[in-house]
Amino acid sequence: MKRTELGTLGEFGLIDHLTKGKNTQNPSTIKGIGDDAAVIKTGDKMTLISTDLLVEGIHFDMMYTPLKHLGYKAIVVNLSDIYAMNGTPKQVTVSLAISNRFSVEALEELYEGMYTACKVYGVDLVGGDTTSSLTGLVISVTAIGEAGEDQIVYRNTAKEGDLICASGDMGGAYLGLQILEREKQVYMANPDMQPQIEDKNHLVHRLLKPEARKDIIEQFAKAGFKPTAMIDVSDGLASDLMHICHQSNLGAFVEEANVPIHEQTYMTAIDFRIDPITCALSGGEDYELLFTVDPKNLDQVKYMNDVYIMGEMVAKEDGIQLHTKQGKRHDIIAQGWNHFKKEE
Amino acid sequence: MKRTELGTLGEFGLIDHLTKGKNTQNPSTIKGIGDDAAVIKTGDKMTLISTDLLVEGIHFDMMYTPLKHLGYKAIVVNLSDIYAMNGTPKQVTVSLAISNRFSVEALEELYEGMYTACKVYGVDLVGGDTTSSLTGLVISVTAIGEAGEDQIVYRNTAKEGDLICASGDMGGAYLGLQILEREKQVYMANPDMQPQIEDKNHLVHRLLKPEARKDIIEQFAKAGFKPTAMIDVSDGLASDLMHICHQSNLGAFVEEANVPIHEQTYMTAIDFRIDPITCALSGGEDYELLFTVDPKNLDQVKYMNDVYIMGEMVAKEDGIQLHTKQGKRHDIIAQGWNHFKKEE
Repeated sequence: MKRTELGTLGEFGLIDHLTKGKNTQNPSTIKGIGDDAAVIKTGDKMTLISTDLLVEGIHFDMMYTPLKHLGYKAIVVNLSDIYAMNGTPKQVTVSLAISNRFSVEALEELYEGMYTACKVYGVDLVGGDTTSSLTGLVISVTAIGEAGEDQIVYRNTAKEGDLICASGDMGGAYLGLQILEREKQVYMANPDMQPQIEDKNHLVHRLLKPEARKDIIEQFAKAGFKPTAMIDVSDGLASDLMHICHQSNLGAFVEEANVPIHEQTYMTAIDFRIDPITCALSGGEDYELLFTVDPKNLDQVKYMNDVYIMGEMVAKEDGIQLHTKQGKRHDIIAQGWNHFKKEE
Repeated sequence: MKRTELGTLGEFGLIDHLTKGKNTQNPSTIKGIGDDAAVIKTGDKMTLISTDLLVEGIHFDMMYTPLKHLGYKAIVVNLSDIYAMNGTPKQVTVSLAISNRFSVEALEELYEGMYTACKVYGVDLVGGDTTSSLTGLVISVTAIGEAGEDQIVYRNTAKEGDLICASGDMGGAYLGLQILEREKQVYMANPDMQPQIEDKNHLVHRLLKPEARKDIIEQFAKAGFKPTAMIDVSDGLASDLMHICHQSNLGAFVEEANVPIHEQTYMTAIDFRIDPITCALSGGEDYELLFTVDPKNLDQVKYMNDVYIMGEMVAKEDGIQLHTKQGKRHDIIAQGWNHFKKEE
């Protein structure tokens, strides 16, 4: 029998491959695979469903991930997908596979983090499944949200000439991970060494305790407009921008100078001898919102708090390009986080 | 710091412990933790959400589980939870954690089984997440269903005097597992031995390719009544009956002679020197429906296809008892499938 390695397709290639040519059969299924969340018609409102699996050793390292933060993050990353549809998360379910090396007290910490996130974002934990695992911890979270039919924002509806905007602060979580990995190596070589992360708090925080951008969605509602397309930045700004481009059949032109990068990200990238823009484009796990806006809404978007206009959607033939601070044009390449690469 | 082992609480004890005292905050959250599915008010209908995690080495052994069957079963066991609320499943999401030892072709098999189940039960696969795993395969499925507000059947609404009914055939899946485990041992001792399972096809099928009882729900609708309480039999008839009893604050009286046991189950239990009624009560993974019916609906229920009236709900003080074929009364003990037992 033929054997094709998973790494040859990558995560998105794999999902496309496994699900292509499959049609949906229920009229209530408005949107299936291919966006931040599925859209289901339920009465006069739409129900949004998003789900994520977090695996120990792949998505988190118990050595530097406090369980309370892990629980908080597991909820937040799912809520981020619902906000990325311009919806409001209302419920979550949580399934856990746990090995016997975890105690009841450890799970209490994990749940405390999850319930804290639920409280902060106004969602209810409504169910799940708990089972054992032969090895590590696996956390599966499903978020359920609601939105009016006209309110939902998809990935495939950007138009040529739309402004490319993003919230927040790109590349920080990636550098937070590099710092914790470095400190782990130092610690393993010499357990008496104290971690040196005081001036990197922002970056470590970005990795361990991200927030979902509920505030941005609320600003849209207040300003009375919605983006033309939107996605949350989980795989990396470049990779997620490409999703909008490919699904909208367009190209993009991004100004390097306008990509939001925190000062700590900038300085730490230089320390690590990485170009800060590479961190911002390919880092991932930022959980910011990337969205496109009709130019007629320029006045509304330009004064939004913590929102940056980074560029413009262009024709597909013009490619997906970065205009550097030196005035050069480069193709943007999506590196993303490919979990199926051989080295893992 | 205090360390309490997971095994001291058991699965249900653990969930109760971690979630007790937490209130819901959204008016749309009608039912949270504690039933087969969560119930969410979405417009004039209710949305039902149920989720399960299947872990390699805990829930299935790749050595005797064909991937196509595993995919089919992963979907079906979730749909069973929606039917157990008297609802209709409409969508599923599927998340996978996969190690590199699986090929693309292996995942195609798995997805073929999942899509077959989707087709048979009329549901759409609308999303999910795919990631890598350092060791085994983990499958997380969430089912989304709908039901009218008056149609939903909970676990905690049985009344004293209600008839205790069940669909189908109890204990078969448990014996199917015993047979496959025995054949695995034989094969590992001598790989040239051919498996001897021809006359056990029914039992192996019950384990590897169970069906959800959509037909029973359709019979309720046709007959124009609904049960007073319902649960699907996944942990074992005894354990699931206890959920109805405890949540409805009642006892139960079950006639051994009326518990539906397939002939192959009966004969094979004797081969294995296990009492058939023990298999039926404690086996688990049957995915049948266990429900209680108001005696005024006796005429409707007694002619239902593949439905058996096994006993009667009684006062809590009368306990949860089995009336044996020898005329004796025994307390029913829930053994269930405790995934946190020490020996695992």
